[in-house]
Amino acid sequence: MKLSELGEFGLIDVIQGIAEKSRNPRYDSWRQLLVGIGDDAAAWQSGDYVELATTDTLVQGVHFDLNVISWRELGWKAMAVNLSDIAAMGGIPEYALISLALPENLEVESVTDFCHGLAELANQFEVAIIGGNLASSPDAVITITIIGFSKGNRILKRSTAVPGEQIAVTGFLGLSSAGLKMLQKKTTLDNETTNILRQAHLRPTPRIKEGQLLLQRGVNTAIDISDGLIADLDHICQASKVSAQIKIDRVPVHPLVKANFPGYQELALGGGEDYELLFTTDKVTMEKVKRVLDCPVSVIGKITEKTLPTRVTLIDSMGNAVTPRKAGWEHFKNEALKSKVA
Amino acid sequence: MKLSELGEFGLIDVIQGIAEKSRNPRYDSWRQLLVGIGDDAAAWQSGDYVELATTDTLVQGVHFDLNVISWRELGWKAMAVNLSDIAAMGGIPEYALISLALPENLEVESVTDFCHGLAELANQFEVAIIGGNLASSPDAVITITIIGFSKGNRILKRSTAVPGEQIAVTGFLGLSSAGLKMLQKKTTLDNETTNILRQAHLRPTPRIKEGQLLLQRGVNTAIDISDGLIADLDHICQASKVSAQIKIDRVPVHPLVKANFPGYQELALGGGEDYELLFTTDKVTMEKVKRVLDCPVSVIGKITEKTLPTRVTLIDSMGNAVTPRKAGWEHFKNEALKSKVA
Repeated sequence: MKLSELGEFGLIDVIQGIAEKSRNPRYDSWRQLLVGIGDDAAAWQSGDYVELATTDTLVQGVHFDLNVISWRELGWKAMAVNLSDIAAMGGIPEYALISLALPENLEVESVTDFCHGLAELANQFEVAIIGGNLASSPDAVITITIIGFSKGNRILKRSTAVPGEQIAVTGFLGLSSAGLKMLQKKTTLDNETTNILRQAHLRPTPRIKEGQLLLQRGVNTAIDISDGLIADLDHICQASKVSAQIKIDRVPVHPLVKANFPGYQELALGGGEDYELLFTTDKVTMEKVKRVLDCPVSVIGKITEKTLPTRVTLIDSMGNAVTPRKAGWEHFKNEALKSKVA
Repeated sequence: MKLSELGEFGLIDVIQGIAEKSRNPRYDSWRQLLVGIGDDAAAWQSGDYVELATTDTLVQGVHFDLNVISWRELGWKAMAVNLSDIAAMGGIPEYALISLALPENLEVESVTDFCHGLAELANQFEVAIIGGNLASSPDAVITITIIGFSKGNRILKRSTAVPGEQIAVTGFLGLSSAGLKMLQKKTTLDNETTNILRQAHLRPTPRIKEGQLLLQRGVNTAIDISDGLIADLDHICQASKVSAQIKIDRVPVHPLVKANFPGYQELALGGGEDYELLFTTDKVTMEKVKRVLDCPVSVIGKITEKTLPTRVTLIDSMGNAVTPRKAGWEHFKNEALKSKVA
């Protein structure tokens, strides 16, 4: 069987099976693993801290198109994508390892631009670049690993959602994929719209502070929206063994996206790369969270008992269940979507 | 300027400059960074432990050739290369993150073979695979990150060599590059030689236990031999601001390599991928180390005061200084060496 038939998530299951068979005695001892494969970051207890580690790869021609994104923006974005995984655990990012596989005919200036973009965002969150690896390669492949931590023994996980909890998201959804559409089609929009969409797609800001506040206020369950709202909510449902209902008209779409993109609903539900936080919690905690977060928080649905086969149900404004058109990004399977991001 | 003109080590300097300008306040506080860019692994203090993190990338067509190495062997080797960096710090490896960028037309079986190879070596050293990333990519690019630790506050570093110290290596050098030559040229050798050379090149065993023993017995300075003896000794000299002299006839070459490869000296001095430990220490500590290590330990030279421009001097059997013919592997610059490893 080819990877294109099995798909990314099928392959994750296979690898997880091999990895779990190889669990070592240390798993249950003094530096206990808390979260392995299958969450935004891995986590283990180390004395008074939970240590976090996450890694993410961007491949030229698959994740980015240098006709659309500059090297400096790419540096920022590569860092943002990884920091967002630490945000989704409620963690404090600390150290970064940068692994660059680059063509040897690349201009040095491109690499320094990339590093400046990367360092700019790293500085903003006081993350130190402490190591990495350089190699020559036909295409650029960028892998960043972030080490972070959380004080005490709590973190945000995907596997702790409970039926009856409210589902909420930070910010607006669909801005990034609207930005990608605009950049790819070279659509001319007014300056304000152009700036907001460019920023959303090329220079997203990970919700680091928000993730920490969620954790502090008692939220247990979160994921960052990278694959798309429905796909990422499905990850929570799968990990927590629950289902979910979303009211489509509660999904926060930015007015500028509504005004300029007739297919805005699809962008918000499946576009991905929003790097907003999707989380679940009880009503009382949700009210507390709304008060402390500076950004918009929209309750968009609720967690329900596990149902089969559909895990995520969409409810339209008439109260009817709607089947999602697109499940979100999946590597190896998305033949038609060679260029996921700009 | 192109990367091919600047070279890997020039680029490391540029990136280090950008990274150090972005040093954050946390550098000098309660989770203090001990070693940043420029050693085998990064290291920071975390309570009673030193935490270690290292990352290494293997690129198809650059680091490996699937005509020579099987996916299972590649999995083993990818893990070995990374564990060797933890060995060079005297650390205990603990957790691994696996980032795979793979062509979508790849057979699933190849990936599972790869993972079994990887898990086999991970199990041997009780390393748990706790996360990673999957992405589609035209060529296979494999990045592994290993997290490890050391009890207390000491680690082996590159920057602590002192004039007067002896230089030593574990095991034999040149076995791996002799193995590569044999595999590439499909040379027929006797069974025993073939097995030893295949093993050295395709299934190296990182010197994890030996690294820990070096640290425990008072050694401060080590590196693993991945680029080649001269190149890696040069890394120590550069980091420690010293020079070094090597007596060529003290460099341990395996009898089977001597017997079958007329250019054995070059293989031992510059071939690389030995994954042996190169270390420096005083005479008394060296004697202690020789007693506790199970593997051969060969004293091959001494650290001297810094000289310019040559950092590593080779001394032949007549006592004459010889200029090394080849400085070892450097990414982006080695035009003629597209296939470094099998």
